[in-house]
Amino acid sequence: MFPFELTILGCSSATPTSSRHPTAQLLNMNERFFLIDCGEATQIQLRKFKIKIQRIDRIFISHLHGDHYLGLPGLLGTMHLLGREKELHIYSPPGLEEIITISHHHSKTYLKYNIVFHSIEERSAVRLFEDDKLTVETIPMNHRIPCYGFLFCEKKRPKKIIQEKIEEYNIPLQEIPLIKNGQDFISQEGKRIPNAELTTEAPSPRSYAYCSDTIYNESYVQQIKNVNLLYHEATFTSDMSERAKDTHHCTAHEAGSIALKANVNQLIIGHYSARYRELEPLLAEAKQVFSNTLLAIEGEAYKII
Amino acid sequence: MFPFELTILGCSSATPTSSRHPTAQLLNMNERFFLIDCGEATQIQLRKFKIKIQRIDRIFISHLHGDHYLGLPGLLGTMHLLGREKELHIYSPPGLEEIITISHHHSKTYLKYNIVFHSIEERSAVRLFEDDKLTVETIPMNHRIPCYGFLFCEKKRPKKIIQEKIEEYNIPLQEIPLIKNGQDFISQEGKRIPNAELTTEAPSPRSYAYCSDTIYNESYVQQIKNVNLLYHEATFTSDMSERAKDTHHCTAHEAGSIALKANVNQLIIGHYSARYRELEPLLAEAKQVFSNTLLAIEGEAYKII
Repeated sequence: MFPFELTILGCSSATPTSSRHPTAQLLNMNERFFLIDCGEATQIQLRKFKIKIQRIDRIFISHLHGDHYLGLPGLLGTMHLLGREKELHIYSPPGLEEIITISHHHSKTYLKYNIVFHSIEERSAVRLFEDDKLTVETIPMNHRIPCYGFLFCEKKRPKKIIQEKIEEYNIPLQEIPLIKNGQDFISQEGKRIPNAELTTEAPSPRSYAYCSDTIYNESYVQQIKNVNLLYHEATFTSDMSERAKDTHHCTAHEAGSIALKANVNQLIIGHYSARYRELEPLLAEAKQVFSNTLLAIEGEAYKII
Repeated sequence: MFPFELTILGCSSATPTSSRHPTAQLLNMNERFFLIDCGEATQIQLRKFKIKIQRIDRIFISHLHGDHYLGLPGLLGTMHLLGREKELHIYSPPGLEEIITISHHHSKTYLKYNIVFHSIEERSAVRLFEDDKLTVETIPMNHRIPCYGFLFCEKKRPKKIIQEKIEEYNIPLQEIPLIKNGQDFISQEGKRIPNAELTTEAPSPRSYAYCSDTIYNESYVQQIKNVNLLYHEATFTSDMSERAKDTHHCTAHEAGSIALKANVNQLIIGHYSARYRELEPLLAEAKQVFSNTLLAIEGEAYKII
């Protein structure tokens, strides 16, 4: 199995506390490192958790509220000061390039590496990135300004051929890719060997959905159906549901409902309002609806299985 | 004595470490709270050290390198979310208003309080602020972009009248302000009572000079002569003096030299390069030149005496 692991760097909502930072997450997907949102102090959190910042090649910013991107200018500056030359890709709603360009203009900063800004304008789900192993697409959220979650999916891998069968049936090398793709084998004696006898299935592709920030709505339930891990914002407990609606956020109960309706394997809640010193009430509320729920805790790594 | 105290919030140079944050300081000057520079995560440091952020009414930004101001947008947002209505004054070289305005435009943020941006354009020392108790003026630095230190001075206070003398000479109420200002008193019998017999001197006015970032130069030595406390950047040790020159910074030795030439009472060094895990070599080097030197340590408060 390839590594597929999420590390929480920040789990607070708009106002940080002395112990909880604004939103940021690092996703290790088969040794590709994706940064998801980049709240203030993300670079300090990355250092604290001993994550090598230059391994990050793609950054996904959900929206342009400060608690989701204000750590980005500092991180970009540090990447530069530490000698980065590799291209960096940043995906976000429109405006981020202008913000970064103006701050670099006033600091007379000329980066040694190239940033490719990808502006997300489409209000429906679109594919942002794809390689031989994985895809990343947007999940349109409903917030006060344009906002997107992100869906990270492994691609289906080819079947594995059983080594002993190669010898047993004297299978020529050029046949192997075809068999891995599901074809039967015709032996030298003209006998059809069914594919199922020659191969084992690769592990099912895994997926991670990041959903923050949004008012409760079920528009993306279908898109995130059956994901292995769902991170969903749960800014408030249900007694604050009016405040949640007013600010276009969700309660822990609502996060649980989305997880249940989408039939996900596991739910992590986060983006906690600073009013909650203790997070147990948020967890208890989500668990009432969806029992396999965990709290996002800074510095913890969650395997996606 | 009025309180006059400096709290270090961040003491790192451009690249933060897991334990040292970019530059920020809080100056309490007679219960007026001034924020000096505002590196990334300043709002988190303020919370950590239990400083009430709404008490800050004036912010002084030395220059627009990210490590000196990138904590500002987040702090401004948090002041807004916590219900601030009081006006806030921000002093900085030109450009900051544009940077803040564009980030607020994209986040659709409409602050509940007014920010008055004061753009520092004059390359010689100018007075930025004055009230009945204190003055703040710029100290022009020599850095890669326009950069200013700040000089905070108490005003000379009137003499104190000795209570017993009021009774002894039956001094009328309207005479008291004149005596406090140094005038002698003529008693009812026509006898001149010298001022020195009636009053004690108020404590000498105190002063704090903040000098960061700059290449070594003595242009501001005269302006900061005899200050009680000097904070001076000391990014490198002397073996890195070429690098210091190239990046327009100072060594610890040079910081000590400025303190010695300006005949200050005490020196605090800071703005340490991330390459120094241990700060003792920087302290030892400055102390060789100027013995009354302290290290800037985050969370520590330094009384100005």
